Amino acid sequence: MAAPSVHAVIMAGGSGTRFWPLSRAGKPKQFLALATGKPLIAETAERLTGLVALADVLVVCGQRHRSAVRTALPKLPPRNVLVEPEARNTAPAIALAALHVFHQDPDGVVVVLPSDQHVADPGAFRAAIAEAVRVASTGAIVTLGITPTRAETGYGYIRLGAPTTGTARAVAAFAEKPDAATARRYLDSGEYLWNAGLFVFTARAMLQALVTHLPGARLPLQRLGEAWGTRKQQQVLEANFKKLPAISIDYGVAEKEKNIQVVPCDCGWSDVGSFDALSEVRPTDADGNVVLGEGALVLGTRGSVVVGSGRPLAVVGMVDVVVVDAGDAILVVPRSKSQDVRQAVEALKAKKLLKYL
Amino acid sequence: MAAPSVHAVIMAGGSGTRFWPLSRAGKPKQFLALATGKPLIAETAERLTGLVALADVLVVCGQRHRSAVRTALPKLPPRNVLVEPEARNTAPAIALAALHVFHQDPDGVVVVLPSDQHVADPGAFRAAIAEAVRVASTGAIVTLGITPTRAETGYGYIRLGAPTTGTARAVAAFAEKPDAATARRYLDSGEYLWNAGLFVFTARAMLQALVTHLPGARLPLQRLGEAWGTRKQQQVLEANFKKLPAISIDYGVAEKEKNIQVVPCDCGWSDVGSFDALSEVRPTDADGNVVLGEGALVLGTRGSVVVGSGRPLAVVGMVDVVVVDAGDAILVVPRSKSQDVRQAVEALKAKKLLKYL
Repeated sequence: MAAPSVHAVIMAGGSGTRFWPLSRAGKPKQFLALATGKPLIAETAERLTGLVALADVLVVCGQRHRSAVRTALPKLPPRNVLVEPEARNTAPAIALAALHVFHQDPDGVVVVLPSDQHVADPGAFRAAIAEAVRVASTGAIVTLGITPTRAETGYGYIRLGAPTTGTARAVAAFAEKPDAATARRYLDSGEYLWNAGLFVFTARAMLQALVTHLPGARLPLQRLGEAWGTRKQQQVLEANFKKLPAISIDYGVAEKEKNIQVVPCDCGWSDVGSFDALSEVRPTDADGNVVLGEGALVLGTRGSVVVGSGRPLAVVGMVDVVVVDAGDAILVVPRSKSQDVRQAVEALKAKKLLKYL
Repeated sequence: MAAPSVHAVIMAGGSGTRFWPLSRAGKPKQFLALATGKPLIAETAERLTGLVALADVLVVCGQRHRSAVRTALPKLPPRNVLVEPEARNTAPAIALAALHVFHQDPDGVVVVLPSDQHVADPGAFRAAIAEAVRVASTGAIVTLGITPTRAETGYGYIRLGAPTTGTARAVAAFAEKPDAATARRYLDSGEYLWNAGLFVFTARAMLQALVTHLPGARLPLQRLGEAWGTRKQQQVLEANFKKLPAISIDYGVAEKEKNIQVVPCDCGWSDVGSFDALSEVRPTDADGNVVLGEGALVLGTRGSVVVGSGRPLAVVGMVDVVVVDAGDAILVVPRSKSQDVRQAVEALKAKKLLKYL
């Protein structure tokens, strides 16, 4: 048996607001250079070097982010950007990608990655992906589980089942975001990993799983499959994409699938979830501050995240705050409330100050 | 005896940094509209309406602020701006002003006012000044003492002596800035007033007091007096101003003078000493925030001072902070440390970012 072809799908449909005012509707988190000097999506693509050729990397995004993808990934062939007609959560996007790969190689292995994560140890990440590819080529759907480093309440967890092959384990269960006590128990048990939205499977296995677990997907997928690669592809896509169930791959498929396994991965992973999380991925100064951009004057200040835009940004005597100068908009929020930036976005919406969103 | 002519001298030589980044070297506090929609110096001039004609108002300032004075006080006759050749504290500036008035009317009364204070009740202020003018026209040097409203440690105090005439009292003593316990004792005693740098005297009395208490001033004052109003005025000013002792009128004259009286004044006075003090002079919202300028989005925030410059300035979930967007520079500092803004100014100096100073 020949080694399966390996493809990657980078999911770039996200449009969160937790990095406003750095992020905007036209430039969400995945296009920001939050963890390194490169946009997270470019990091994500480079992380696959040696595992997946760029020609076999697909990016799924919305129409309004197509050009941002091209800017962030200038070497990606333009035809490798799959534009969703509308945002319908991850299952339809993954269905499209599986269909696309199936058309080239039904037993091709597909690696699904969010576009907005950081990995400090790409070698460990690639080793885990390689292991997952081996397991997936047997027909299993595989997820990567991140070894937890803290009792995080913001993520879903994966409970480990029996060992299967190599480092892989059966998935005993997917667990919802826990409360603090439960998260602590999960961490201490050693039997839980973080669900990071990383999946590996053959195109055939995923399409089968989709029609099995989401019966409503059967007909639109059949029509898309018939038209894929023909002149009618775009027309059929626009007519049928909206008929695919708008659900996450986790709820729609992974939690229902029997033949699902997990490969543990301890790779310095971060989802860079908010300004607060920048200290996970960026160096801090002697006072625990993360200082990015130009212009910041951080004086007598501790534990803060300060992002400058060139002009002087004096942060004096502050503790545990986020101060972001994005040029045309400014944010000041306590670190512990950095997710409340959404309130600012809502306020701007209410004032119809749309150009700042 | 004819009523004395009444003149005012607005002291505009200050160049503090406590309002950076709103204030700059070329536009210090007195030129900012901190308390109302008008610059403090314009408020100061208007406060004299009915007491002193604008033709009899002098403004003493440095060369670099001459045009800012003209902008803030467009109706002031240009010849009424007295430019100090250099900053030498208040005694030389007051000496110049006294000389100027003496030349017109040796018994003219001079009201000296700092240019950077706010008065909520100008009627009460004018009544106290009118009283002080009456007392001063007898030859006394008079200071206005502000009825204290809190145990402030940042001001000097005036201890009340025996009643003299009307509401005036002898000055028993000038007291340095007290510690907190002393300030509390001063406040509770009812026998102390704040020294606000407001003085009233005849030109003759002040010139006499200057040569009495500052013997080094005698010769340069004599030379200035001979040249004043002649073609040589400017040349003699430049040669002799620097020979006047660089000392405050408080230390140099007031504290040494026997014939000094104080008129109490309860007029809603504020020296608007820092961003923190803006809540004394500006309305606060229901959460105790002072919000000025345009663009501020103050959400879930209490007790803060937020100054916008037009673009969105989101301050979310903060307590007791100062956030100032001045357009080309930004400041974030706890309210309790708002005087530490000087550190930012020093840091900019050290980085030679002079255009932001």
